[in-house]
Amino acid sequence: MTESANPKLFEEVTISTTPIFEGKIISLQVDTVKLPNGATATRELIKHPGAVAVLALTPDDKMLVVEQYRKPIEKSQIEIPAGKLDAGEAPEGAARRELVEETGYTCGSIRLLSSFYTSPGFADEIIHLYVAEGLIKGEATPDEDEFLTLEAITLEQAQAYIREQRISDAKTIMAVQAWQIYKLTGSY
Amino acid sequence: MTESANPKLFEEVTISTTPIFEGKIISLQVDTVKLPNGATATRELIKHPGAVAVLALTPDDKMLVVEQYRKPIEKSQIEIPAGKLDAGEAPEGAARRELVEETGYTCGSIRLLSSFYTSPGFADEIIHLYVAEGLIKGEATPDEDEFLTLEAITLEQAQAYIREQRISDAKTIMAVQAWQIYKLTGSY
Repeated sequence: MTESANPKLFEEVTISTTPIFEGKIISLQVDTVKLPNGATATRELIKHPGAVAVLALTPDDKMLVVEQYRKPIEKSQIEIPAGKLDAGEAPEGAARRELVEETGYTCGSIRLLSSFYTSPGFADEIIHLYVAEGLIKGEATPDEDEFLTLEAITLEQAQAYIREQRISDAKTIMAVQAWQIYKLTGSY
Repeated sequence: MTESANPKLFEEVTISTTPIFEGKIISLQVDTVKLPNGATATRELIKHPGAVAVLALTPDDKMLVVEQYRKPIEKSQIEIPAGKLDAGEAPEGAARRELVEETGYTCGSIRLLSSFYTSPGFADEIIHLYVAEGLIKGEATPDEDEFLTLEAITLEQAQAYIREQRISDAKTIMAVQAWQIYKLTGSY
């Protein structure tokens, strides 16, 4: 193990925490920290419950995507099915739940591809990305404040949507890249 | 153009905005919105200035990465060079600036690979991801509250770091995937 494998390298030790906001989904706090050189700095920190996303592949080799309005960016976006973890919920169960809620599909098999932080400079949000196969069609049951349309698209269509910026979020681009790599190499 | 190419599909119209916090880096507001069915809902929204990230490839086919402490997740992470846009700064200039500040390297060529939202469910942060080549070594000049170490790694080392979760942020995993796809197909 090299020194840089130390997960506390350059640790910023918390001196004080000021809670700013506690919302339904995110909370915000400002921490004062002690830097490695002894100086102090402030850090603006978003806490998020974590989320799941699903690369769901149909028997005819298409991926399921949903289009929905994203208020922070004031436009609709095509994304893979995804959603926040409920309190105490295991990620795999959340992935199965979001898939059926948003698309109506249940899956025969599901496995974790990767877990990643979306923006570790200011937020602790982690997304667990799954690949789901053996899909069986059913009826979608989105949340009452959730409006979306479902589409099944080929890899080439997904790549065109990325070029057109109708797909432009990190998790969906990562899923499309992972799918392409799988087709090229046989592994994710 | 199909109906789903409408960027205002399922638009959530702002009824009111409550500013909560204005920080050095992010700000937070809560909007009350009118949903497509006429009901109202609230949306917790983070505003961020946007950022750049650089897949910087050395003549001996390695990528530059920096390790730094990420306070929101309370551990150090290995990431590609990246940073926020300064006010009014063009993304390409910011990418060149962050590369030289964090690594000391200047680049002969730089081009945009993709621009993506990190977490469009609650934040407007967009990252412009560049690939830089023709690197020339110089001296790093990180910000005064920024502590990091530099490393140049092969694709295989990057993939090992992802498995070990020493690399676990979206932009770096996307950059590694894009690099792998380039090696497999000759295009990004």
